[in-house]
Amino acid sequence: MINKLVKKIQETGAPIVVGLDPMLSYIPEHIQKRAFAEFGETLEGAAEAIWQFNKEIVDKTYDLIPAVKPQIAMYEQFGIPGLTAFKKTVDYCKAKDLVVIGDIKRGDIGSTSAAYAVGHMGKVKIGSNEYTPFGEDFVTVNPYMGSDSVNPFIDICKEENKGLFILVKTSNPSSGEFQDQLINGRPLYELVGEKVDQWGEQCMGDKYSNIGAVVGATYPEMGKVLRKIMPKAYILVPGYGAQGGQGKDLVHFFDDEGLGAIVNSSRGIIAAYKQEAYTKYGAENFGEASRAAVEDMVADISGALK
Amino acid sequence: MINKLVKKIQETGAPIVVGLDPMLSYIPEHIQKRAFAEFGETLEGAAEAIWQFNKEIVDKTYDLIPAVKPQIAMYEQFGIPGLTAFKKTVDYCKAKDLVVIGDIKRGDIGSTSAAYAVGHMGKVKIGSNEYTPFGEDFVTVNPYMGSDSVNPFIDICKEENKGLFILVKTSNPSSGEFQDQLINGRPLYELVGEKVDQWGEQCMGDKYSNIGAVVGATYPEMGKVLRKIMPKAYILVPGYGAQGGQGKDLVHFFDDEGLGAIVNSSRGIIAAYKQEAYTKYGAENFGEASRAAVEDMVADISGALK
Repeated sequence: MINKLVKKIQETGAPIVVGLDPMLSYIPEHIQKRAFAEFGETLEGAAEAIWQFNKEIVDKTYDLIPAVKPQIAMYEQFGIPGLTAFKKTVDYCKAKDLVVIGDIKRGDIGSTSAAYAVGHMGKVKIGSNEYTPFGEDFVTVNPYMGSDSVNPFIDICKEENKGLFILVKTSNPSSGEFQDQLINGRPLYELVGEKVDQWGEQCMGDKYSNIGAVVGATYPEMGKVLRKIMPKAYILVPGYGAQGGQGKDLVHFFDDEGLGAIVNSSRGIIAAYKQEAYTKYGAENFGEASRAAVEDMVADISGALK
Repeated sequence: MINKLVKKIQETGAPIVVGLDPMLSYIPEHIQKRAFAEFGETLEGAAEAIWQFNKEIVDKTYDLIPAVKPQIAMYEQFGIPGLTAFKKTVDYCKAKDLVVIGDIKRGDIGSTSAAYAVGHMGKVKIGSNEYTPFGEDFVTVNPYMGSDSVNPFIDICKEENKGLFILVKTSNPSSGEFQDQLINGRPLYELVGEKVDQWGEQCMGDKYSNIGAVVGATYPEMGKVLRKIMPKAYILVPGYGAQGGQGKDLVHFFDDEGLGAIVNSSRGIIAAYKQEAYTKYGAENFGEASRAAVEDMVADISGALK
């Protein structure tokens, strides 16, 4: 799957991923009204609004981008109807040939991680049938519980040609509380990075491994170090835009061919129509605003990489 | 919510929680056959089998126990129908007045953790309506991302009188890979334990806090230390039975009133009918086997605490 992601990044010239993290407050009123008119102000209504919102953004941007990253929490908060919208979004994006990174941050003891891995990237067997419960291409994984909590995900990656992005150094302000603690003089995130490098050896694509890492755009110096510690790990970089990261900060996450990293923006793209730079599009044309925001983000990052 | 949990533990004399982690292989054939006859060998059929299996176990044990802990991964692996069975199980257990601990191990950047917290313990607002998407009483949380990933869960605990169990030292064999790393001579799990103690101060019940911790039965010596570091944290103890923990190993997780800890068993109870000690019940009476296994587990732990 990493080969497909790299190929799509090269084809689009866009080392970016659009975070499909719909909050109701991002969704234009006309979309909400239409959904609530049909389903009421219910979980089903909210889920329909999310789905219509996502669909428009995907329709207006899919030809420019290699991948999307739906954040499952934003769907899970609307219960079963929300998760149904998540599944619908995954299916729709895959039909558009986008690589789908499920931002699920799961991780548990072995048999439980195996269940998550099957549910999100694999096939579940029921009698003589097999089903694809959610069917993402990559998922994010939390490593706090160690190798035996990560290995079941890696097993499914091998079986199904899928991939992972493992949390190494996250973009949030208090990520350092545990991740930066020094162990024999070196921060915990470096140890996790070394493990990611080892885990990745079992599951190589052509140049990069199917086992990647998450490193926040908000910590560019650490990204520079981690790029060297994990030479084969693709780095998924959250924290661009709304969280404060900029293209020029991110050059060291990439290799000298402009590969090795993919930068996520969520709010900055999906709620672009609310930003001053894009108000001219108006809420009715929020998809066009998202398209313009994608173009600007690609220009910012490509410019920095030149 | 911790007060309710403590009260129910005192009433039942059972500091235990039944892990509702149904694998298809645990579910007796007659249950599977009936479900597949109605829904086919489909995700819906598997979900129906899980639900019928859970219902029977709850019906046969609810008067003996204070709480259940459904592991969401076991439902998530069956997609939307599986998660519908999860919700149905939560609702049913709450109707039986059991405390429901959602074993979800979530944790993300602030706004995303807030979405998980609302989805699992709070109410989501849609227009002028409010809904309870999943409605657990407690959830488990992964602390790797630090305070700003945990605080949104704590906020909902305060608003809704709910509680957390935060991963400190997990029961799996490789939990030490990161959790045992020494920071200024002390393992990371102790630092996390100290944070749990601090987080818990904001959210106290009578004697214990609504913010508890997960410490595996498989590491009793560490449990002894952590009991002192987190005097106000209730400890959820996985790893009893199938993973190797025994009652006599667990005394130091408890305070001198026999409170302070609640021990989980999943497979050992829900698949009791498959164990030699309970084969006399037969697969048809798997619920009775689970009841007997609960009684034996309570006797083992109470005996050790005397």
